[in-house]
Amino acid sequence: MSVQAPATLFDQDAVRRAVDTVLTDFLATQTHSALDRSLPQQAAEALSGFLRAGGKRIRPVLCVAGWQAAGGTGTPDPAIRAAASLEMFHSFALIHDDIIDASDTRRGQPTVHGQTSTHAAILIGDLALVFADQLLHGAGLTPAQLDAVLPIANALRADTIYGQYLDISHAGQPSADPGPGPALTIAQYNIAKYTIEGPLLLGAALTGDDDAIRATLTACGMAVGEAFQLRDDLLGIFGNPTHTGKPSLDDLREGKTTVLMALALQNADGPQRRVLHHHVDNPHPIDAGADQIRTVLTDTGARTTVEEMITERRQSTLTTLDTANLPTYITAVLRSLAVSAISRTT
Amino acid sequence: MSVQAPATLFDQDAVRRAVDTVLTDFLATQTHSALDRSLPQQAAEALSGFLRAGGKRIRPVLCVAGWQAAGGTGTPDPAIRAAASLEMFHSFALIHDDIIDASDTRRGQPTVHGQTSTHAAILIGDLALVFADQLLHGAGLTPAQLDAVLPIANALRADTIYGQYLDISHAGQPSADPGPGPALTIAQYNIAKYTIEGPLLLGAALTGDDDAIRATLTACGMAVGEAFQLRDDLLGIFGNPTHTGKPSLDDLREGKTTVLMALALQNADGPQRRVLHHHVDNPHPIDAGADQIRTVLTDTGARTTVEEMITERRQSTLTTLDTANLPTYITAVLRSLAVSAISRTT
Repeated sequence: MSVQAPATLFDQDAVRRAVDTVLTDFLATQTHSALDRSLPQQAAEALSGFLRAGGKRIRPVLCVAGWQAAGGTGTPDPAIRAAASLEMFHSFALIHDDIIDASDTRRGQPTVHGQTSTHAAILIGDLALVFADQLLHGAGLTPAQLDAVLPIANALRADTIYGQYLDISHAGQPSADPGPGPALTIAQYNIAKYTIEGPLLLGAALTGDDDAIRATLTACGMAVGEAFQLRDDLLGIFGNPTHTGKPSLDDLREGKTTVLMALALQNADGPQRRVLHHHVDNPHPIDAGADQIRTVLTDTGARTTVEEMITERRQSTLTTLDTANLPTYITAVLRSLAVSAISRTT
Repeated sequence: MSVQAPATLFDQDAVRRAVDTVLTDFLATQTHSALDRSLPQQAAEALSGFLRAGGKRIRPVLCVAGWQAAGGTGTPDPAIRAAASLEMFHSFALIHDDIIDASDTRRGQPTVHGQTSTHAAILIGDLALVFADQLLHGAGLTPAQLDAVLPIANALRADTIYGQYLDISHAGQPSADPGPGPALTIAQYNIAKYTIEGPLLLGAALTGDDDAIRATLTACGMAVGEAFQLRDDLLGIFGNPTHTGKPSLDDLREGKTTVLMALALQNADGPQRRVLHHHVDNPHPIDAGADQIRTVLTDTGARTTVEEMITERRQSTLTTLDTANLPTYITAVLRSLAVSAISRTT
């Protein structure tokens, strides 16, 4: 079965639609196969519902962009299917993260463990990880492509899990951190490599083995990825919950050591520090406390510093792209993705 | 690096040692790599400790046996490494199962979630699943071997998770089951395919594509696998906790619908049924109740029926092996594995 080709040289919406078609068809097949074998179809159905509820498909889009950046041409089928595998892996990661973070909502709906149970959600996440393998292994890759892609996919997966492990190791221990360093390391593994650099490199590996292109994609990917997480930190505190789809202050409730919070703690005076600690130590801050925290994050300069860090990374990305030897339309795509990842409000 | 070859045509202990060497070396590399990159080394160390604590390595041994059954000769490296991947997948499955079953001990030690936390154990299990991929993809398989093995590995993984999902769907609802059917389906997916048939077929796929051998391995694998689970059910109630390494009556505490329990419920009279329900509904039966349950399981004939079901499956396995065209020494190995899996006391 051929997947629908993007209508133009790089049409992000067409990539999203093609990826969603692959995912929908795959899960429908899994659901029927489960029914045929007297196995519970709820697991595959839960994944369908989770994917239907939303998501920006940023990793699949970047995977296909990486493929084209490295010179990929012709039928996009294998790239689209590899991209779909990344989205399935992302479902796994989110479902388990939501358990770990005790999140109630995701994409404006109850989380999978809220709809089922924690135990079912562990298994549904596990199944998504196996499904991600099935999608990648069944993507129609040549032996050479498979050989190039599997180590990258495995590294991306391990790094993502390590990043999350780092995250929970540091959660609730903000006072042990001397500054924003550890939070930035978490952002590098949990987000930059996972969300931006990894998908770009995975797509590029489908095509060739060009060190210069890989270096460009890594430089852009890490800068955009870090900026993406820094923006996320800001949105988690200052964003509109109606837009972001998750409750404001969720990160604070989980005691997460964001760069924003680490900077604020580093610069806070006594009373400011007490405000931050009070809310970090209290797992259920009342909304009345939210404004106090926002004030401290602003007054300590942390908010401004994080905005500056984002600007630096956007600038370095644009400079890298300007001097790189990529196809013009791919430079445009990466530039627009960088800007939207960094300037987004949701 | 070459792994140590089994000393004789099929030396189970040598296979176990070779697999453990691969696992130890792999995890040592992972631990060092994590340290080098400022990532937490605890995850890989926890997996090392888990593997060191015990385990019979039945899946790796069967994988190598399947490889030889299908005509595998020459260096066993790829088969040993594929076998090690199965053991790593098994670690993943046990770590998540122990969370789901709220088990306190495994292999005579505290479970991983007991040693760390539930959240860390979810991630350590996730990492083990990714490591299983890395071991399999890095096993030095040819493209043709990889092409044959990946779908089998993925099916084995999905079926295992589906089996566990079935298990928790039925847990705590024994009265809804009309007989031993659903419990047997769980045993087929959760154990027979996962523990016996899957590893045999995976090993066989490394070598060739012989339908007759596959049919033999499936027939033996499913029969031994079901018998293995039936023995497990008996050991869980009547076994010696010092030998089995897990508390007696654990299955009852979890409300699991074993074939043993389903048969007893089907045959029980009023007072017997009340004894069973009392303890199924009570998540912490006191040891004084254990003897009452054992008496009911015996008096209803359930224990005898399960022993008969085990005997039937042992007999069918031995008949299949007698009439199959396998190398003599492999028939001997499979026969001994079948007998030990079925007659074991731990």
